[in-house]
Amino acid sequence: MKKVVLGFSGGLDTSYCVKYLSEEKGYEVHSVIVNTGGFSAEELQEIEKRAYSLGVKSHKAVDAVKSYYDKVIRYLVYGNILKNNTYPLSVSAERMSQALAIGEYAKEMKADAVAHGSTGAGNDQVRFDMIFNIMIPGVEIITPIRDMKLSREEEISYLKAKGVQMNFDKAMYSINKGIWGTSVGGKETLTSDGFLPEAAWPTQLTKNDPENVKLVFTKGELTGINDKTFSHPTDAITYLQDIVGPFAIGRDIHVGDTIIGIKGRVGFEAAAPMVIIKAHHALEKHVLTKWQLSWKDQLAQFYGNWMHEGQIMDPVMRDIEAFLTHSQENVTGEVYVSLLPYRFQVTGIKSDYDLMSSKFGKYGEMNQGWTGEDVRGFTKIFGNQTMIWHQVKESLEGGK
Amino acid sequence: MKKVVLGFSGGLDTSYCVKYLSEEKGYEVHSVIVNTGGFSAEELQEIEKRAYSLGVKSHKAVDAVKSYYDKVIRYLVYGNILKNNTYPLSVSAERMSQALAIGEYAKEMKADAVAHGSTGAGNDQVRFDMIFNIMIPGVEIITPIRDMKLSREEEISYLKAKGVQMNFDKAMYSINKGIWGTSVGGKETLTSDGFLPEAAWPTQLTKNDPENVKLVFTKGELTGINDKTFSHPTDAITYLQDIVGPFAIGRDIHVGDTIIGIKGRVGFEAAAPMVIIKAHHALEKHVLTKWQLSWKDQLAQFYGNWMHEGQIMDPVMRDIEAFLTHSQENVTGEVYVSLLPYRFQVTGIKSDYDLMSSKFGKYGEMNQGWTGEDVRGFTKIFGNQTMIWHQVKESLEGGK
Amino acid sequence: MKKVVLGFSGGLDTSYCVKYLSEEKGYEVHSVIVNTGGFSAEELQEIEKRAYSLGVKSHKAVDAVKSYYDKVIRYLVYGNILKNNTYPLSVSAERMSQALAIGEYAKEMKADAVAHGSTGAGNDQVRFDMIFNIMIPGVEIITPIRDMKLSREEEISYLKAKGVQMNFDKAMYSINKGIWGTSVGGKETLTSDGFLPEAAWPTQLTKNDPENVKLVFTKGELTGINDKTFSHPTDAITYLQDIVGPFAIGRDIHVGDTIIGIKGRVGFEAAAPMVIIKAHHALEKHVLTKWQLSWKDQLAQFYGNWMHEGQIMDPVMRDIEAFLTHSQENVTGEVYVSLLPYRFQVTGIKSDYDLMSSKFGKYGEMNQGWTGEDVRGFTKIFGNQTMIWHQVKESLEGGK
Amino acid sequence: MKKVVLGFSGGLDTSYCVKYLSEEKGYEVHSVIVNTGGFSAEELQEIEKRAYSLGVKSHKAVDAVKSYYDKVIRYLVYGNILKNNTYPLSVSAERMSQALAIGEYAKEMKADAVAHGSTGAGNDQVRFDMIFNIMIPGVEIITPIRDMKLSREEEISYLKAKGVQMNFDKAMYSINKGIWGTSVGGKETLTSDGFLPEAAWPTQLTKNDPENVKLVFTKGELTGINDKTFSHPTDAITYLQDIVGPFAIGRDIHVGDTIIGIKGRVGFEAAAPMVIIKAHHALEKHVLTKWQLSWKDQLAQFYGNWMHEGQIMDPVMRDIEAFLTHSQENVTGEVYVSLLPYRFQVTGIKSDYDLMSSKFGKYGEMNQGWTGEDVRGFTKIFGNQTMIWHQVKESLEGGK
Repeated sequence: MKKVVLGFSGGLDTSYCVKYLSEEKGYEVHSVIVNTGGFSAEELQEIEKRAYSLGVKSHKAVDAVKSYYDKVIRYLVYGNILKNNTYPLSVSAERMSQALAIGEYAKEMKADAVAHGSTGAGNDQVRFDMIFNIMIPGVEIITPIRDMKLSREEEISYLKAKGVQMNFDKAMYSINKGIWGTSVGGKETLTSDGFLPEAAWPTQLTKNDPENVKLVFTKGELTGINDKTFSHPTDAITYLQDIVGPFAIGRDIHVGDTIIGIKGRVGFEAAAPMVIIKAHHALEKHVLTKWQLSWKDQLAQFYGNWMHEGQIMDPVMRDIEAFLTHSQENVTGEVYVSLLPYRFQVTGIKSDYDLMSSKFGKYGEMNQGWTGEDVRGFTKIFGNQTMIWHQVKESLEGGK
Repeated sequence: MKKVVLGFSGGLDTSYCVKYLSEEKGYEVHSVIVNTGGFSAEELQEIEKRAYSLGVKSHKAVDAVKSYYDKVIRYLVYGNILKNNTYPLSVSAERMSQALAIGEYAKEMKADAVAHGSTGAGNDQVRFDMIFNIMIPGVEIITPIRDMKLSREEEISYLKAKGVQMNFDKAMYSINKGIWGTSVGGKETLTSDGFLPEAAWPTQLTKNDPENVKLVFTKGELTGINDKTFSHPTDAITYLQDIVGPFAIGRDIHVGDTIIGIKGRVGFEAAAPMVIIKAHHALEKHVLTKWQLSWKDQLAQFYGNWMHEGQIMDPVMRDIEAFLTHSQENVTGEVYVSLLPYRFQVTGIKSDYDLMSSKFGKYGEMNQGWTGEDVRGFTKIFGNQTMIWHQVKESLEGGK
Repeated sequence: MKKVVLGFSGGLDTSYCVKYLSEEKGYEVHSVIVNTGGFSAEELQEIEKRAYSLGVKSHKAVDAVKSYYDKVIRYLVYGNILKNNTYPLSVSAERMSQALAIGEYAKEMKADAVAHGSTGAGNDQVRFDMIFNIMIPGVEIITPIRDMKLSREEEISYLKAKGVQMNFDKAMYSINKGIWGTSVGGKETLTSDGFLPEAAWPTQLTKNDPENVKLVFTKGELTGINDKTFSHPTDAITYLQDIVGPFAIGRDIHVGDTIIGIKGRVGFEAAAPMVIIKAHHALEKHVLTKWQLSWKDQLAQFYGNWMHEGQIMDPVMRDIEAFLTHSQENVTGEVYVSLLPYRFQVTGIKSDYDLMSSKFGKYGEMNQGWTGEDVRGFTKIFGNQTMIWHQVKESLEGGK
Repeated sequence: MKKVVLGFSGGLDTSYCVKYLSEEKGYEVHSVIVNTGGFSAEELQEIEKRAYSLGVKSHKAVDAVKSYYDKVIRYLVYGNILKNNTYPLSVSAERMSQALAIGEYAKEMKADAVAHGSTGAGNDQVRFDMIFNIMIPGVEIITPIRDMKLSREEEISYLKAKGVQMNFDKAMYSINKGIWGTSVGGKETLTSDGFLPEAAWPTQLTKNDPENVKLVFTKGELTGINDKTFSHPTDAITYLQDIVGPFAIGRDIHVGDTIIGIKGRVGFEAAAPMVIIKAHHALEKHVLTKWQLSWKDQLAQFYGNWMHEGQIMDPVMRDIEAFLTHSQENVTGEVYVSLLPYRFQVTGIKSDYDLMSSKFGKYGEMNQGWTGEDVRGFTKIFGNQTMIWHQVKESLEGGK
């Protein structure tokens, strides 16, 4: 009997896949769910139960939270990555982690095929297909929903006919949760105009009084919050999320280019990720040189876009990670953040590596390091070529 | 008698310069003030009166608001330029406009020298010196405050000795106002930690009820607000500022690299500029292609930094402006913004050029333009090189 | 009867297409050949005769040499574009021009389908398909050789069975000629090692005595050679090719990334293009500022790669062209080149816009514009931030 | 008695400095020469003798060839760095190595001052000053030739008056030799037109018969030539230079932007560096992915320019080196080069990491990995956004 490894979330599409692959196609179905921080232990048990009830031969839950951080999130932080200057890549990045884990599992299981529930209309199909093509090139990729262009209704009637009992109601918004943010799509995001209503956001405002929080970074990684120190940054992220989430911050709508060329909009809430990125960036502005900041921006913009397009396995990504990691050498210090309903403000930093050191002259005040004469000389040379350019131009125009 | 053209603001430093240049150095002083949107007609009259009372031979007020927009601000909008992802270059950009106008005036006046009141500790000395070096390379540049390393107290006692009467009190915060934003420096911004207190901000919160505002862009320029149309974008900016300013939005602290290599922090409020840039960028995300957005970002980052460093006359800036201008061809449409106390949210756009057109497939829904098979083929080819790279690698490692 | 417009070169593949489309598929075949400088008038007549003899309903030869220059080559010159620092994009660029002309013709003819003879293994299929998908999205694209995976032998026996008489011998090298260079593929280029033998190069060495040639550029375009002036740059290119070709220069092997992800090698000879690009670049080094040169390089690298991948219709290409065109404002002057067997050397330039003007100081000699003190001050400020960085570092390490 | 460390080459300028610093300024002079491959043991002895005869307290020769490679040249190879696409940075890079060694020595010696013989007209003054400002910020920098604007004649008559005997004849060309190339300046390079005559080149053509040479790279470093293996890449470079130098290859004129803003021209011969860079790049084209090649180019262009401007100590350089080093992981293999009088040709490569592997499809031939249908799908999606852009545009124009 041929084995298929199926990425399984317990939703309608992947439930359909279990039945279809086992009963119509005769596969031995091994379902797998990769938790990147969006599922509680109870939810995972629920999903496992459903998988077996649908008839899988085996089911596995991979806890990928730490590996997701180690392979992906850390670089998103190092690079202050916000796609189109807005979106922390919550879902895009998560899919990479999930596809890598599923590919690894399919390899381990020596599966004949790997299946996922993506439709033919989004980014995820590309991400899963691409990682599988690269990791396990001989293994067939099966995507029943995409290949048969199944509608929601067709899936439901098939499952009902098979005696499957589950909640077939369509949620008003499609929500995807993980440690690096939650996406919220539906209604208002389907057109170019309209913001999600208050009730649509999974995390509601429950804190109204301002608070301050201190983030501690060590070589670019979040290692402490206020007076607590954490053994792994994912613990710090989760702890921070509990503090900042109730302020309902980090909400926005991302307008972006899908891999398949169309434009799409999606809402997201990412309180901890947004606070971390803004705090990390503020610290970097104090400890990195001008050109470090500039090149990090350029490389990170590409890195984020290329990740978004599913290209995490391109070796150029490892090269960029080497740059980013090296750039974090001095990104150690504390960052202070004020939290308020719906917004936050980075208010300052403290770091041994701070280049805004009063020892070397304060902006706007004279100092010992150099003189006004030095600056006068600097300026003359700094503008020299452009001066020549204009003089050449003028002499020609004068001559006309 | 030798003529000097002096950039004059009516403050302590430039008042000192008038007296010093005329009485100690024997110059015929021609003062000039360049208004980039920060002065009212009354203030300008006040300044003119002071100039004559200090003994200038002539005084001129240049209204540079429109030329400031035409030569500088429009490109800051086209490029969505926020230095270090934060600061709309309020002061940096303004200085360019002022230096250009003063240089032009010195040329017209056939001045023997040009003077400015900069100290030896900031960015402005570089900006003024550089533009003058380039525009009027033969003309001497005199900077008494920098050259004699004068302290505030020294300036005051000199002026008092000369019988000058003016307000010699030091303001708690140093404030610089223009159409593209107001900077606020002092106390909290002098160290790496601390946010400006509510009272320090020139514009106070006076609107508490949410409002919506519609911005109309034509080829990247702000041409309308709600139902009003404007003959020049500066009128639209001023009109918008009156609407959005009272929400106390667009406040932040910029941490940046000065031209002379040290780090500095400065507060700013720039309500209209921030709303315009975010609205413009949102529209662009809908009407530009992926690579237009990407290249605009890279060029604009450089453009903003190079402008900040005073290099507006480098011809590469004209080349980048040609790119930016061309990229705005389709940036026409409406952008909707919600205004709330201390924050705002772009909620959507409407444009004939919107690429998120339902005619060509909605994100997440199937469409006629292509099939799942097409995407499957796309993905195979899109990841082909990386697949080969990994297979080559694996075959070598397998062979070991 | 349904109409198909067929790109026709008179070779085996497209001859097959005529017969197949008309006789098996019942199309009215309208063949079209786009001359980008590779065909003589006699060759074009020959091809027309063959088209009619194969049974086309109509045949058209489009003279695209000038439009190829106007839309493509000029920007390759402005950008000094050599893919992977080697290849002037001879074939890649030509395909763009041809696809655009065929697409235009299909539109004019209101064709139901458009066909080309590409196989499924190269870049050209992507280039033609893509341009057609974009220009004429409703029109079917037919590619018989690709779709039926036809071998050379299958095509020959089909044509023989149809009574077609032509030279069925396979050339040892596959050659593609155009005004911007000639590609030569086969045998040695099919593996990673091996250079084409002397006899394989279409243009043989026939000049052995060194010559000098002067190229005259006007705003970046080649407008004169020695003492001759030309009304269109294509005439200058052709004239130059006659002078430089017999020196057997501009030969090399390009190793590159195909659009479909595999690596490929191809030989090329491009005497005039290489001389023009190197001469143009030399002139630019004298008349452009440092940052103009730097940004031109970055944009041109992308422009060349994106063109190579068939993406000429992305509007970002127009934006880059605006930049490049603007950058050529001062690229006017003469360039001197020595020609020798198999090699050439740019020996100097002369331009009114030359920034290496002795008026403003010669390199290595003192001058009036600035003093050693100025440079000393410049250097102090220029290295200031890095000095602070190292001092901060040292003080921390010292403290340990 | 105050100590000065003086960079000493034995030439006129630094001979002057010894006498001036010791006899006029009362310094204890400690001369140091840093050999970056340009001096033989005999020459170094000669220079030491001269130093003592001029009256230095101590003289030291630092052998920096290996450290020059380890800290600088390796990255120039990894990055295939040719400034303005021409110049391997022979002198610019060498100065970095020399300044670092002199700064280190001044630190060791606890010198009160450091001196160099640069004039006020070139790049070297900036390079030396900057490195010293950064490394030893308290230490005075003395530059007698620059500060007193001494002419050659003034220096000679001073030295003659002091009884110094040396060859005071001016060489026709100023030559600077090191392991990474030799610069040749004078006469023809002082204006924008003119190539150096045959006799001006230090290395003359002495091999007329073609030869082949094989270069072996290991992770981007040259480790073998033909059948010889070397323990350090500098040995391989020297060995290669002996083979390729007599072909008189690697000669050209570099036109570039000096740090002080003027343009300059300089001839150079760099046979081994040019062969190594072209061979290394050819290998990379086979083993790196498209985006690795692209990002390497961008980073390397900046890296080379920033190095040229003396900024080797900016920490961004270390970050870029981390990227470049990581990118070399697979740059292992052999490269074949044909050598001919005045020119050379890379003819092919062999590498286990070659991505042009016949296993994964040859360019231009069909293969198993994907089908024509896949490419058809790829192309549709690849051009999707641009198709939509044009359709939107057309529908608007049609509507007018």
